Amino acid sequence: MSDRHVVVRSIDRAAQPDIDALAAYGTATVHEAIGRRGFLGPDLRPIQDGISITGSAVTVSCHAGDNLMVHAAVEICMPGDILVVTTTAPSTHGMVGELLATSLVARGVRGLVIGAGVRDMGELRAMQFPVWARCVSCEGTVKASPGSVNIAVVLGGQVVEPGDVIRADDDGVVVVPRSEAARAVALARARTDRETATRERLAAGELGLDIYGLRATLAALGVEVVERAER
Amino acid sequence: MSDRHVVVRSIDRAAQPDIDALAAYGTATVHEAIGRRGFLGPDLRPIQDGISITGSAVTVSCHAGDNLMVHAAVEICMPGDILVVTTTAPSTHGMVGELLATSLVARGVRGLVIGAGVRDMGELRAMQFPVWARCVSCEGTVKASPGSVNIAVVLGGQVVEPGDVIRADDDGVVVVPRSEAARAVALARARTDRETATRERLAAGELGLDIYGLRATLAALGVEVVERAER
Amino acid sequence: MSDRHVVVRSIDRAAQPDIDALAAYGTATVHEAIGRRGFLGPDLRPIQDGISITGSAVTVSCHAGDNLMVHAAVEICMPGDILVVTTTAPSTHGMVGELLATSLVARGVRGLVIGAGVRDMGELRAMQFPVWARCVSCEGTVKASPGSVNIAVVLGGQVVEPGDVIRADDDGVVVVPRSEAARAVALARARTDRETATRERLAAGELGLDIYGLRATLAALGVEVVERAER
Amino acid sequence: MSDRHVVVRSIDRAAQPDIDALAAYGTATVHEAIGRRGFLGPDLRPIQDGISITGSAVTVSCHAGDNLMVHAAVEICMPGDILVVTTTAPSTHGMVGELLATSLVARGVRGLVIGAGVRDMGELRAMQFPVWARCVSCEGTVKASPGSVNIAVVLGGQVVEPGDVIRADDDGVVVVPRSEAARAVALARARTDRETATRERLAAGELGLDIYGLRATLAALGVEVVERAER
Amino acid sequence: MSDRHVVVRSIDRAAQPDIDALAAYGTATVHEAIGRRGFLGPDLRPIQDGISITGSAVTVSCHAGDNLMVHAAVEICMPGDILVVTTTAPSTHGMVGELLATSLVARGVRGLVIGAGVRDMGELRAMQFPVWARCVSCEGTVKASPGSVNIAVVLGGQVVEPGDVIRADDDGVVVVPRSEAARAVALARARTDRETATRERLAAGELGLDIYGLRATLAALGVEVVERAER
Amino acid sequence: MSDRHVVVRSIDRAAQPDIDALAAYGTATVHEAIGRRGFLGPDLRPIQDGISITGSAVTVSCHAGDNLMVHAAVEICMPGDILVVTTTAPSTHGMVGELLATSLVARGVRGLVIGAGVRDMGELRAMQFPVWARCVSCEGTVKASPGSVNIAVVLGGQVVEPGDVIRADDDGVVVVPRSEAARAVALARARTDRETATRERLAAGELGLDIYGLRATLAALGVEVVERAER
Repeated sequence: MSDRHVVVRSIDRAAQPDIDALAAYGTATVHEAIGRRGFLGPDLRPIQDGISITGSAVTVSCHAGDNLMVHAAVEICMPGDILVVTTTAPSTHGMVGELLATSLVARGVRGLVIGAGVRDMGELRAMQFPVWARCVSCEGTVKASPGSVNIAVVLGGQVVEPGDVIRADDDGVVVVPRSEAARAVALARARTDRETATRERLAAGELGLDIYGLRATLAALGVEVVERAER
Repeated sequence: MSDRHVVVRSIDRAAQPDIDALAAYGTATVHEAIGRRGFLGPDLRPIQDGISITGSAVTVSCHAGDNLMVHAAVEICMPGDILVVTTTAPSTHGMVGELLATSLVARGVRGLVIGAGVRDMGELRAMQFPVWARCVSCEGTVKASPGSVNIAVVLGGQVVEPGDVIRADDDGVVVVPRSEAARAVALARARTDRETATRERLAAGELGLDIYGLRATLAALGVEVVERAER
Repeated sequence: MSDRHVVVRSIDRAAQPDIDALAAYGTATVHEAIGRRGFLGPDLRPIQDGISITGSAVTVSCHAGDNLMVHAAVEICMPGDILVVTTTAPSTHGMVGELLATSLVARGVRGLVIGAGVRDMGELRAMQFPVWARCVSCEGTVKASPGSVNIAVVLGGQVVEPGDVIRADDDGVVVVPRSEAARAVALARARTDRETATRERLAAGELGLDIYGLRATLAALGVEVVERAER
Repeated sequence: MSDRHVVVRSIDRAAQPDIDALAAYGTATVHEAIGRRGFLGPDLRPIQDGISITGSAVTVSCHAGDNLMVHAAVEICMPGDILVVTTTAPSTHGMVGELLATSLVARGVRGLVIGAGVRDMGELRAMQFPVWARCVSCEGTVKASPGSVNIAVVLGGQVVEPGDVIRADDDGVVVVPRSEAARAVALARARTDRETATRERLAAGELGLDIYGLRATLAALGVEVVERAER
Repeated sequence: MSDRHVVVRSIDRAAQPDIDALAAYGTATVHEAIGRRGFLGPDLRPIQDGISITGSAVTVSCHAGDNLMVHAAVEICMPGDILVVTTTAPSTHGMVGELLATSLVARGVRGLVIGAGVRDMGELRAMQFPVWARCVSCEGTVKASPGSVNIAVVLGGQVVEPGDVIRADDDGVVVVPRSEAARAVALARARTDRETATRERLAAGELGLDIYGLRATLAALGVEVVERAER
Repeated sequence: MSDRHVVVRSIDRAAQPDIDALAAYGTATVHEAIGRRGFLGPDLRPIQDGISITGSAVTVSCHAGDNLMVHAAVEICMPGDILVVTTTAPSTHGMVGELLATSLVARGVRGLVIGAGVRDMGELRAMQFPVWARCVSCEGTVKASPGSVNIAVVLGGQVVEPGDVIRADDDGVVVVPRSEAARAVALARARTDRETATRERLAAGELGLDIYGLRATLAALGVEVVERAER
């Protein structure tokens, strides 16, 4: 961050095979695998069920109520990127709609993650353009205030650096630092393998209490087991 | 507004051709076309995707937790109307359910916009009765306090006068003053024409930066463009 | 409630025929029938449309950010039960996901009501496992703090005792005290019968004003009826 | 309201004696006296205890994150006025601080009511400049977007017309339509007289149940009075 | 709870010496001492700093927007009682003001805990009448709907039974079950004694890490201690 | 950030003269001077009026509902430091009270900034220990989950690095990157000098419209100035 406003044209991205490999794992798995980090919070919701994207973050920092810098960012986007839009103060404006989505699709952008509102929901859903947003709003923006593209931004309590990997699905959005993408794939794969084994045991009726060894934990914490409640 | 409680039986409505014509334009377009006014805020959400209505507002002002005046309003509604229900203090009660919806349908009412809760979601969706509401709640209301029908009300930070045109779709609800309906149609049409041309250019890969002449704006605001971030 | 942490293994449940009979009535009807009680508030939303469950509450009280006691509760659940999970302070963590849901399904549990978050939405929906939750979140929990299973808990401003009947559908969740289940069925049936008759009259164009005798109420409250608004 | 942006220089105000007379009555009294209208909601809080102002509204409508129109409004203010600032979408920016307050004091403005944030709390309190605001925030605004001065605005669910009388104290802010100021004084005086008599009776141990005749209401509503709870 | 509305005139209270003894301990101490229970949540705030009360709960359940049952409750209050007011759905109304406070003072009531709003803040503060409330609001209520007095109510996620002991101070409100009052005094005293010793050690520069033996916990949890951050 | 949990014992701090110099400028001035950055949002409020601190951040990242790492952090604090406590998911627990404050005072810590709750308000105020927090809550925490000390944390949408300068007063909290402390002092001084000159002109009756040259802006934006509103 800086007190200048800047558009950074070229950023480093993670290796494409790692990005593609991450797409095989859900956001909750990725979040857990990398040490319970990177979840952008429960307020960023998909605008329709079943959408799922993985790609490189192009970040935008806008003044609230102003989408000028989103336009500046479109030019910087490369195929496979995901636009991550933030505002310097809370905003419920509909900052992006069908026209900007059309432009993003033309650039090969895979989706939008935005800490404010979107509009033209009917059109966005019909286009099947994947969006995670805080709200839906008709409220229009101006194009009058400076901001930045491809600087580190904060969204949902997480730092997103340009080029970080964004993974988003029905559970929300997770950011993986660019330099950790390969490791995240390995960790997610390992976790998934473990979970597959656990799932089979649970489906067969075994208990998490036994699988995870939690009976000892309960006892150590002083939790009493009684057959009936006292009256 | 007044300190009396009153039910006004007859109101003026916009010309039906103008109301019907507005139905061709989405709420975001209408909101923008009339000067970024009239959006009833992101908290009023449709109870199912893809519903869309246009009609004349019959307004209701209720005491919180009391739906007596909704019943009084039903009698006043004409075919093509939209019931707009407000409370004098915030309320999450389920003020309207399947029975009132049945009654509204019988009156030819096109839908409901309510600054509180609704209930019987399964039935309302099965009936395909269009509703925009703040929340869903089983919580019942009483019928014990006075209120008014067809007075000016405030909902989502906007004034709705009886007879104003309501336009609602997946993006939310917009109100157009009755006297501006014809002008709103013309403005929405003009905006849509402009957007159609812009959409084609954006789809072909042109940038909003160029189409809207925003490069000069960025420069004037002192936004620097750099190839790489400094380290 | 108590200052000890306890897991109660055996609880009394309502008679199965009463539980099954309640499933025929929507939550709003049940809530109204038992005297406008038991609604767990508008914040507990179903994770998909059209799901509906009825069963006996197994209650869980967890420390925020900790799902240890959910694991302890799974063992206690019987076929037909519904798990009701609360936290002792507000939490947005994703406390339950696909693995725990798999375990609950293996126990014959009919669904989950949780005053915090869930995750693995895609999987939960694919499994058709019914869940009512406050939010969706990837955020992981620990298994390190004591809590209780099958004590009285508070959720959405309502007390849920173990063995109470839970009824949940598109409108949300309602709790019926165990000892009142039979009476609730009778009351819900009576209300439904009345509503069926009323629905027919409303559909035929009669007004609630007349059916409920509200014209006298309006007059007694001093609500004036005028033909036209004064200017 | 209109789709043009306009600064209206001259407005009508209520008669000064009526404005001064209203200052003798608290906001709750005024709100009740005029028919439970005009309260601008619980979110507008005074920045210090014990401040109280009465004056004529000069209204401002700003784009969120932009205080340009506040500057435009200062010039229009007359001694005895109260500045009422709104934004066209929710904003938490600190739109007004010590410098603007200094300017407002120089114009004889009695205080500020703002549906967004203020800053320089230490200085504002030291100046004893009365402010009712939604929040306190350092966050700065730009001066780049058009808006209006002295048009009807909506704040806290109430319409404020330029020249309306603003009454604000520890309970919050109430607006009285300009044309009703004299009547509001009479109504508030009558209510206060009644309350004085009631206060004496209550202080002497009489009950509201008896003074207001509520025992009959309770009986009519079917509220049972029992000596002891059933077990 | 029940589907009838009832006013229970006589309730059991804790022994007065126990109530008085609890007044010596802060709410946080009491909450901790009885097993981290009974805190009515961070939304119930005192209307002025430094107020502190202890007494027996007289409970009220009101319909939202209606204070009829508060009047019914005043008659039931005894000297030393604390009125605990709840609504069956969320409400921001100013349900209690100076007149009701005057009446409560005349009955010897020690204070008010209310899950909605109050008004006449200036007068309440001048009277030094202790109040914990969710908000301040001029908004008036009606007296038209039934409710109950001295039934179990839920406030801030806690059950309050009539006759329970209420302890309130700058930190908020804590409820102690009536039957546990004596034990709560003993537990609070023991905790306070321990804390006094700990405070002295901490003030002398000892660390909680050592006093509570947390270094082993950190090590067991795998927290690494490093001299310098890696770059 | 990392998926390990770590306590970093030694951090770099800004030069003490720069830290001390910043204390002369209010948070709003500092925030503006460094380019409208660093404000930790309107939700972090001081627990009493008139408190003001400046110092170096020692950062803490805790699991929600767990204050173990706060204890770990105390040992790391040096005289002049400010403890900055965050949680990995939202929490309203009272994580810090009088005992921890006593310990912090013994270490020479100047104050606490915490993105959750505090308790023992009466004692904290009596100690005059400066705290900025999200809420006040009795709710107790456990000491069972790992976290980190002196890693980069996010609070109120801002990144705080260990050793950054914290400036807090009645307006809230601002963070200045450690490496920019000297520059921030110079910028704040320059801004203050400019504001002093402006304040005098405003106090003398000059208008911001003229001082800032905003009349041209209004004209360029198409804002019309009219003498009277049209009817």
